[in-house]
Order: sequence, then structure tokens, then C-alpha cells
Amino acid sequence: MLNKNLLALGKHRSEIRELFEYGKTLAEKGIPVCDLTLGNPSAPTPTWVTDALLKGINSENVHAYTSAQGSQKARQVATDLLNAYHKTHFSSEGIILTCGAAASLCGVIKTLTESDTDEIAVLTPYFPEYKVFIENAGAKFVPIPFATSDFSVDYNALESLITENTKALIINNPNNPSGKVYTSQEIEFIAKILNEKQNKFNHPIFIISDEPYREIVFDGAKLPCIADLYKNTIICYSFSKSLSLPGERIGYIAISDDVCLFNDLYAGFLGALRSVGYVCAPSLFQYMIENFEPVFSDFSVYESNKNILTKGLLNLGFTCNEPKGAFYLMVKAPDGNSKKMSEMAKQIGLLIVPADSFGANGYVRLATCVSPDTAKASLELFKLLAKEYNL
Amino acid sequence: MLNKNLLALGKHRSEIRELFEYGKTLAEKGIPVCDLTLGNPSAPTPTWVTDALLKGINSENVHAYTSAQGSQKARQVATDLLNAYHKTHFSSEGIILTCGAAASLCGVIKTLTESDTDEIAVLTPYFPEYKVFIENAGAKFVPIPFATSDFSVDYNALESLITENTKALIINNPNNPSGKVYTSQEIEFIAKILNEKQNKFNHPIFIISDEPYREIVFDGAKLPCIADLYKNTIICYSFSKSLSLPGERIGYIAISDDVCLFNDLYAGFLGALRSVGYVCAPSLFQYMIENFEPVFSDFSVYESNKNILTKGLLNLGFTCNEPKGAFYLMVKAPDGNSKKMSEMAKQIGLLIVPADSFGANGYVRLATCVSPDTAKASLELFKLLAKEYNL
Repeated sequence: MLNKNLLALGKHRSEIRELFEYGKTLAEKGIPVCDLTLGNPSAPTPTWVTDALLKGINSENVHAYTSAQGSQKARQVATDLLNAYHKTHFSSEGIILTCGAAASLCGVIKTLTESDTDEIAVLTPYFPEYKVFIENAGAKFVPIPFATSDFSVDYNALESLITENTKALIINNPNNPSGKVYTSQEIEFIAKILNEKQNKFNHPIFIISDEPYREIVFDGAKLPCIADLYKNTIICYSFSKSLSLPGERIGYIAISDDVCLFNDLYAGFLGALRSVGYVCAPSLFQYMIENFEPVFSDFSVYESNKNILTKGLLNLGFTCNEPKGAFYLMVKAPDGNSKKMSEMAKQIGLLIVPADSFGANGYVRLATCVSPDTAKASLELFKLLAKEYNL
Repeated sequence: MLNKNLLALGKHRSEIRELFEYGKTLAEKGIPVCDLTLGNPSAPTPTWVTDALLKGINSENVHAYTSAQGSQKARQVATDLLNAYHKTHFSSEGIILTCGAAASLCGVIKTLTESDTDEIAVLTPYFPEYKVFIENAGAKFVPIPFATSDFSVDYNALESLITENTKALIINNPNNPSGKVYTSQEIEFIAKILNEKQNKFNHPIFIISDEPYREIVFDGAKLPCIADLYKNTIICYSFSKSLSLPGERIGYIAISDDVCLFNDLYAGFLGALRSVGYVCAPSLFQYMIENFEPVFSDFSVYESNKNILTKGLLNLGFTCNEPKGAFYLMVKAPDGNSKKMSEMAKQIGLLIVPADSFGANGYVRLATCVSPDTAKASLELFKLLAKEYNL
């Protein structure tokens, strides 16, 4: 009687959300819990955001419908920010404000999907909702395995898995869940392969550059501009992480004048968003963008948490990577069983997500965007875990 | 290369949006224009809303992700409001907060659509985006014609157009674009037909009760509670019109405990919203709902505009209906050519939407949610139109 796929999606929440809801239940009962599940930023929203929202609330017509693509002023400011960050030359005519990165991604994926033979590839490890968005749009989800323990790209796999049916490759840089920052050299290598494939198959293959974490990089790591290194790039962005506003749903899709099929892509994105009821991005938060001041949240807490946790976990005998950006950390389950590790941790009030559904079997993901106290307290619980594992 | 349906949707904006954008261009150039296109409420947002938003902006964690279905407190308040309005007994377990009525409708329609033989019926005249949402979900759009000049239901047509494939009937009460309020008696008659059809076909046929205008009724008109008169009712609501917040995207889906397939429906809605990237309703506006004070926008301007316009138009020799609710008005094109009438009006700076795409050939729709000055000024332009028509 009802759509079976959607029913299954609704009944089986993502593992992240499942644990997050469990943590909320415990917290409501006053039971202490170290919740490292969800990417809910702990850094405060910049004060200018609060000021802009206060000004907005007292302005006339701030809550009115805007154009579907967003107000011209907000789009111009978002364009200027993008150009300032990447040193690019995007025009506001290539920008659509959206209800966050998830909306952006869904709009783009739906637009690129013509038939059920179409494939969208993603670099592994990946944010699990990519699979949901791709399969719901009617395309085939194609994960590209990672090569080594530093989560770099397996180029041979990429070479063989990009086929005539590939419409796009999603790159999330910095990467959720690994915290890896793909370098210029790596992106150039990927671009070379994709350019060869475009020529061979005689149709565009887009890179969907999912950049919600782009401002969060550590140790002076440099984030390359994918749109500069590969012409057919579609940028999806969200202010959720850079301004600590994940619940407000504000972001954008951006394409440069150079991208092929520019006009059709832009119209397709608008059509895709319209078709599922996205009327416009929340207007008060468009007003905030109009009044942007170039100050992001203070990300230093994420870097110090990362340092506390990587150092502490390595000392305890766990194996983990050293993230260069974003606010996640991947830890190997000592016996390779990540679900068991997540379950054992849950028993002692530590919530960590098995990363099998991120395409990284045998790992758990830690969201390190918590308070320093929670980061430290979680190390105490990892100490108990280490004992259980006889590390 | 790209999805053709979405491309077409993006390239051919709705006629409402097309005229709205045209009006904005004129206004930006300082050219005076009477824009009666879009349902952008002119009544100010209630002061408690502004106060609640100000309080929210200064609260901790207000911008964080919430549960997908919305915060428990906001859902309870929304439930209490719904029950107070309709004198019903909904539980908060049946409520999902959404990014507005369009998101609600898309989530519901997608959930109910299993195969391309499924049909979703709508009472005519109808909000044109219904067709977009239904067809995009993969179902067949089935308009039920109206009977007479007062836009009441053609029951014979309803009887014959509800088939074995019908999954739901959308009723928008009060109706956009006609302003008609379907009475208890009319809803009971529809319910009787649907109950017979459910029995005959041995599967549920839902009413999707789209209620964004429910608080806006005139002359003491009584709005029946469809959920009370028909068990298998799914309510879609938005705060856009009742609180004058259309750009902020906040609403809900509600089902009562009595509805059949309750658990599956609820899970399906969550899955449908998740599948297209609706993460949660904007969290600041969830906070606003948590702090609800039962005062809506002052709708008296809509009633006085309606009175000014209906009286004025009838005096000029036009034919129009007398709306009982919402803030739209349908006027007959004197020669039956609504597109020509809209075009003639456009030439003199009066923007009105041909209602053919609302399922009402030969009518134009006026959005009467404008300032009293705009309402009066538009009458002056209608006077010029009347002359052109030799009325």
C-alpha cells in the first residue's frame, strides 16, 4: 500500500541518528553520557550572526517569500565569499541558495539522473546519506574504495569503476568521516582520470564537490579548489559547520560559467528543488548572509579535541588516523568488529558510530565537535574499553 | 544528459512565479506596479513571534540539529494547537515538523505512491504545485472538476474519478485559489463516497487535508475538521499564512491514532523527507513554536481587501465570487480568455495570474493579501480594464 523503500528508510534510521536519539533519552533521564555521534558543532555561533539575526527580525518583510534561487543580494554575497575563499570567478548567476548541503546534494543528484542505469560514484569513506540520496534519485551508488590506512584514493579502482554510465563523482573535502584533506596533487590525479573518461565516453562527468567543512582545516593544511582543477565541478556548500548553524538549513549550489551545460544545470537544479517542495531557503538566514561579516566560528576547539583524542587513543593502544580537517576521527576496532566496539562503548555511556555504513569496515567514527570536557571524559571511557580489549 | 522533467520544471516557472519575478524587476526600476500574484501575507507577524525569535537567538544550542521529526516540546505544542483548533485528540506521536506545507505534501504524496498506476485526486480549482508534486512522486494527477460558479464539488465526477488506483484526495480548505470554504455537509458527502470506495476496493483512500489557510475565514464561516469527519485523514499545515512567515519554511504533517497504517505512514513520511534531504525543520522556528502564544496575524486586512475588491469589481461589471476564507479571489475574464486578460492587465501595471493552470479555465486569480492601498490602486487599474472590455 505504501512506498516500501521510504518505509524502510523511515523505520531504519541511520546508525548515527539511532545512537543520537539513544543518547538524548539517557541525557533526559540524567544519565551521564559521552555522545560522539552527531556533527553538531560545539563552537559558538559568531556574534555577528546573532547581531544580523536580531537586526533581521526587526526588519520589514524579512519573513517573506524570496525568489526560488534566493535573494539577489544574498546570492551576490555568497558568491563573493566563495570567490574570496577559492580565488575563483564565479558569478551570482551560478548560485542557488538552498536549505542546506543535503538539499543541495539531492537537487544536484536528481538533476543528473536520467535513467536507472546512471551511476554516481563517491570516494570512500563517505557520508552514508549519499547512498540514500543517490538511490532515491534512481541512480546506482558506486563507492570507490580507499587505498591505504590514510584513506587516500585507490586510483586503480577509480579508473575501473568510472564507466560509460557514470554521471558524477562526489568528493567531500575535508572528508567526513576520515578528516582527510585531499591535496591538489590528488585532485589533479582524479581530474586527469575523469578528463580521459569524459573524452572516451564523449559526455561530461561532473565532480560534485561537497564542501561544508572547507573552512575547518588544521596544521596549515591547504584545501585545493576542485572547481579550479576540474572544469565540470558543481559545488555544494552549507553554513552549518562554518557558522555552527546545522539546524537552520542554509547553504547553496554553485557552478562556474565554465561548466558545460551551465543553463541546463541551473534550470535542472531549480526544477529538482521545486519538485520536492523546496520553495526557498529560509528567508531570515538569507538576510543573515546579506549581512555577512567574514568571521567564522572559532574552530580551535576542534583542533585541540582532535589532538587530545588522537594522542590519548594512541597512548591507550588504539589505532587511529590524524585528521587534517573537519571534526571527525576514525578509530580501528581492535578485533576488526566495529559494531561490537560501538556496543561495548554504549554499555559504558560512550556513543561512537560503527563506520561500516561509511564504507570503512572495522572502524568507528568519533565526532570530535564536542566540548573539551566531553573529549577528555570520553578518553576515560576509552581507557575502560582498552582494558576490555586487553590493549 | 540531464533529467528532462526537472529541466522543464526549472525552465518554465509557474505562472505565479513568472509574474512575481516580472513585478520585482519593475519595482526595482521604480516603476509602479500592483502585484496581486503571490500569497505573500501583508499582515504583520505577531509581536510574540518577534519576541520568541529574539529570545531564541540568545538561547544556547538553539541552532543545533533536532530529531528528524522535530523537538518533542515543539511537537507537543503544535499538537496542542491542532487539538485546540479542531477539538480533536491527536497525540504528538503523530506529528512531524517540516520545512513548510510544500515539504509536508511532498513527503505524504511520495509515501503514498508505490507505482506509476497510482492516482492522487485533487478538488478543482487547485494550487498548481499539487500537479508538480504528484507527478514528480510518480503518481497520476487526477483533478476533480467543480460543479458550479461557486466552486462546489461535482459529486458525480468525484464518484466516477475515484478508482481502484486512487491513493488519496487532496482537499485544500479554505481553497486556494477560490477562497471557498467546504462545509461540514460537503465534507460529509465526500467522506461518504470515499468510504464506499474504500469498502469496494478494500484498501484505504486517504484525504490529504491541506490547511495552511484554516485560521483565515470570514463572516463567521465555520471550517469543518476533516479528520473528525473522515478517519483516514492526513493533515498538512504551515505557519506561513497564520503567522505571516512564508519564507521561513515551517509546518507539519499530522495523523491521528485512528488513521489506518499509523506506524507505517509515520515511518514512510520520515523516510520520504529524509530521502530528499530534509534533515529537520529550521531549529530557530521550532524554538518559536515551543514558545507559542495563541495569537495569529491580524487577518482583518484580508477581509477588508476582499470586500473592497469584490464590491469594486462587481460595480465595474466584472464577475467574481465571494470568498469565505484564505486571501485569493477569482475573477472571470469577460471574454473567457484569462491569459489575454492577464496580459492586458500587465500592460497597465496590474499583475494577476491566469487560473487555467489552477484548473479554472477562463478565470484570473487575485492574491488579496496586499496592503489596502494596493487593493484600492488595483481597482483603479481594473477600471481601465473594464473600459477596454467595454463593460
